Amino acid sequence: MATYRDVLKWGDKRETSLDEGMKKLVKEKFNFSDLDLANKYLAGNEELIIENRNQISDEIINKFVEISGSENVSKTVKDIANHSYGKHYEELIKLRLNIIENQPDLVIYPRTAEEVEQIVKICNEEQIAIVPFGGGSSVTCALQMPNGGVSLDLTKHLNKIISISEKNHSVTVQAGMFGPAFEKELNDYKSGYTCGHFPQSFEFSTVGGWVAARGAGTFSTGYGKIEEMVLALNIVTPAGNIQTKDFPADAEAWDLNHLFIGSEGVLGVITEVTMKIRKYRPQNISYISFIFKTFEDATEAMRESMQAGYGKPHLYRISDPEETDIAFKIKGFENTFADKFLKLKGYKSGSRTLMFAAVDGDADYTSFLKKKLKKTAKKHSGFYIGGGATKKWLEQRYSSAYNREPMMDLGIITDTIETAVSWENLNNLWSKVRSYLDSRPNTTTMIHISHVYENGANLYITFLSPMNKGNEINDYLELHKGLVDTIVANKGSISHHHGIGRALSKWMKQELSETELALMQSTKDYLDPKGIMNPGNMLGLK
Amino acid sequence: MATYRDVLKWGDKRETSLDEGMKKLVKEKFNFSDLDLANKYLAGNEELIIENRNQISDEIINKFVEISGSENVSKTVKDIANHSYGKHYEELIKLRLNIIENQPDLVIYPRTAEEVEQIVKICNEEQIAIVPFGGGSSVTCALQMPNGGVSLDLTKHLNKIISISEKNHSVTVQAGMFGPAFEKELNDYKSGYTCGHFPQSFEFSTVGGWVAARGAGTFSTGYGKIEEMVLALNIVTPAGNIQTKDFPADAEAWDLNHLFIGSEGVLGVITEVTMKIRKYRPQNISYISFIFKTFEDATEAMRESMQAGYGKPHLYRISDPEETDIAFKIKGFENTFADKFLKLKGYKSGSRTLMFAAVDGDADYTSFLKKKLKKTAKKHSGFYIGGGATKKWLEQRYSSAYNREPMMDLGIITDTIETAVSWENLNNLWSKVRSYLDSRPNTTTMIHISHVYENGANLYITFLSPMNKGNEINDYLELHKGLVDTIVANKGSISHHHGIGRALSKWMKQELSETELALMQSTKDYLDPKGIMNPGNMLGLK
Repeated sequence: MATYRDVLKWGDKRETSLDEGMKKLVKEKFNFSDLDLANKYLAGNEELIIENRNQISDEIINKFVEISGSENVSKTVKDIANHSYGKHYEELIKLRLNIIENQPDLVIYPRTAEEVEQIVKICNEEQIAIVPFGGGSSVTCALQMPNGGVSLDLTKHLNKIISISEKNHSVTVQAGMFGPAFEKELNDYKSGYTCGHFPQSFEFSTVGGWVAARGAGTFSTGYGKIEEMVLALNIVTPAGNIQTKDFPADAEAWDLNHLFIGSEGVLGVITEVTMKIRKYRPQNISYISFIFKTFEDATEAMRESMQAGYGKPHLYRISDPEETDIAFKIKGFENTFADKFLKLKGYKSGSRTLMFAAVDGDADYTSFLKKKLKKTAKKHSGFYIGGGATKKWLEQRYSSAYNREPMMDLGIITDTIETAVSWENLNNLWSKVRSYLDSRPNTTTMIHISHVYENGANLYITFLSPMNKGNEINDYLELHKGLVDTIVANKGSISHHHGIGRALSKWMKQELSETELALMQSTKDYLDPKGIMNPGNMLGLK
Repeated sequence: MATYRDVLKWGDKRETSLDEGMKKLVKEKFNFSDLDLANKYLAGNEELIIENRNQISDEIINKFVEISGSENVSKTVKDIANHSYGKHYEELIKLRLNIIENQPDLVIYPRTAEEVEQIVKICNEEQIAIVPFGGGSSVTCALQMPNGGVSLDLTKHLNKIISISEKNHSVTVQAGMFGPAFEKELNDYKSGYTCGHFPQSFEFSTVGGWVAARGAGTFSTGYGKIEEMVLALNIVTPAGNIQTKDFPADAEAWDLNHLFIGSEGVLGVITEVTMKIRKYRPQNISYISFIFKTFEDATEAMRESMQAGYGKPHLYRISDPEETDIAFKIKGFENTFADKFLKLKGYKSGSRTLMFAAVDGDADYTSFLKKKLKKTAKKHSGFYIGGGATKKWLEQRYSSAYNREPMMDLGIITDTIETAVSWENLNNLWSKVRSYLDSRPNTTTMIHISHVYENGANLYITFLSPMNKGNEINDYLELHKGLVDTIVANKGSISHHHGIGRALSKWMKQELSETELALMQSTKDYLDPKGIMNPGNMLGLK
């Protein structure tokens, strides 16, 4: 029996319970008893039931079967359910409420890029919607199919490295390859390479998804967002194939790669990606951790170092005071001798701020940059606390996402939102977002900076708050709306790396002028004249 | 009296005669006598005559006068002639032959971005073509107006810095500002900044032109091409205004900046640019010069250093053996004691290869990177010869372009072409291009690498060859065609930073698929439905 819970959890094996630190936090912040911790709210253990809307005729299904084989065309309840939602909070709460309403009619697992072309051709002829599907880790409702259609899942077959060029430092890979397999194969190849792109969703996301959502990984401050890594793309569109070239740079009119990076499935199906790779040298990484007296001290040190012209760390991260205090609490650092020592030195709970950095690359460079970062941090009250905390954080960085379901089991909203902002507006945006969330009773907010640029940085906001039981969806949507409004009003971008999807599309319409929206629509109209590619996603594009 | 020569030369004061080194080269390579050196071939000293095609009615001209003032609307022969061509070799030879055939009907110097909007609106209503005009340094025939229209020159008024943000490390500047004024104002601002973008055309090009042509400057290996520097743009199009946002990064669908970077005037008029700036610290720059035994040794050292993960120099340059020998000859190094010493050590004329590097930024960083580059070079036969040659080269880097007219005065084709190529294909492309040019009798070719990436580099090709007198244009076009064909056949891009213009558009049509071309046309059709923006340029876009 398949349940709603099977769909909402992360993969087959990654459902964990809260660790002791998190349990302690929940007890203290939300006044939970041990008994409360044992209950599961809206566990979603009921059997999956999905209406078969029968929108695609058997005749057409047979065509798909002819193309990709019967084993790669599925209407099973489990397959359909697994492709009906991503991992946006609203989607997860709907699954807990046993609501599946945006499901595809069919899931197809094409075996080759040519099969993708054939499927797109038929769907275009028959006006059947397509959503390209990778890891399904979207947190923006980008994968929903309110009017049904075909979910085109690239992960079963289109998941291999096509070629690696040691000389060019590049790899060509099929879009459906998951992060861990991709990275392992690169690590193991000859002298060893790394893809350099490690989003929080790394284990459950694909190369094609990284490109489609314009993602950023943990090492983005050094290696850039995915748009800085892509050299060439192959995209199948209803209007035909597009294969860009892997020149290291060029001035051949405008760059078509940048039309498809961030296109979120509305223009076509990304089938192949050629991207940069770097030498894999984990032994060289320098790990650095500081504590600052205030958030402002930390951001000032970060800005100064990014503009200093001595190189950039790959990981660069600040936890704001509340996130810092919670980290100390969860990790059992509170009231240790070291904690007392820090407090004595003026690093006080409620304002002290953690900074993590890691530098990848040549061994001399990683130690050079470590020295420079220490010097800059020191000028701004940064107290060096070794590299251990950073290294440990990196080792467990994917697992924190698995706290989400156990937290939601406790009836606690567990969500994140993120934005990018210039240095001039960063501190103000941070405090406005914090005020907004702090104004909701019983809410714990943790904000960090995790992707840093010469001209500004992102803010990543995690918030925990008890659900309004019986009114879970609307209560959340109101909270989310106020949060995005606060971000926009204070000059943050609507997204730094999650993308737009359906969840943020109404704000895009406010941000962009009519000319800009119509320009984007005109691009879609040319490539997808019948509007079959992820209809309604992102800009509400037809 | 204005002459054809007034138009073909670089600005008012920059016509120089050949220096002694160049004279020596010409005598030796082309067997010129002193008498030959005194003559001027096709000097273009005749009085400018341009047909007034009277295509724009007085009524409409009056509308433009009402918008921008009579002093900013011109039909003088000199103004029209100065806006009829860029600096492509074919254009210069036509001027010498007293041919002006692609002139605008009118030159307008708008005073504000609002005036640009009004002018674009009228031109759109009346179907009058517009070419946005900056420094006029195009080497791709991008500025020609075969059917006339308005040349919209932004340099007279739209040439100011609007704002500088020290905190964001960014500047907002009007598109018509020239390089030197822009850089000087940044240098002088408070603690001192630099734009970091120094194309060969720096003195005679504008910020808007850099963006429109997707240019690259001398320091691009460290700071990137212009597309890595732009944060936001304002563009006036017939369909309306587009103002992108200056977020340090974002994931708000696809990035519209990249639609206009490289658009070469076919989509609209770039009126404002917000771009990154860096600290101005010339005292910190480290200058480094090496000599290698072979071109292959040099490119291998360059590749290794770019992929080493220890940082990238800002200037990075290799002169191939022929360019190296010529540099030694011109600078009087040949047969000096040092030359003899080098030869004795195995650095032989005909194969030895010069490399220049310069590192900008923090003082510790520039000396750190210098050490690392020396170590890598040494592994590949790189012999360190101090920093002086690099420093001297940088000091005179703009003036070498002024040799062009005196060389053409001698009846010698003096042209350049450039391409980008992956490391895998670089050495082969280099040797194929060299074979092609070497097969033309009496031709001197100098090839260098001047913009370097982890995944490849550019090749910049300078060639000198006596004109086929009486058949100057067709002879050149044939030579040029064979050269571009050779580049394309050997996997080079059609352009790395010059752009496409009209000169290379026929190759774009070969390179791009029908889908890609039609996609680009669809973008133009939306923004410029009547096809008034630089019609016929680049992709032959309507």
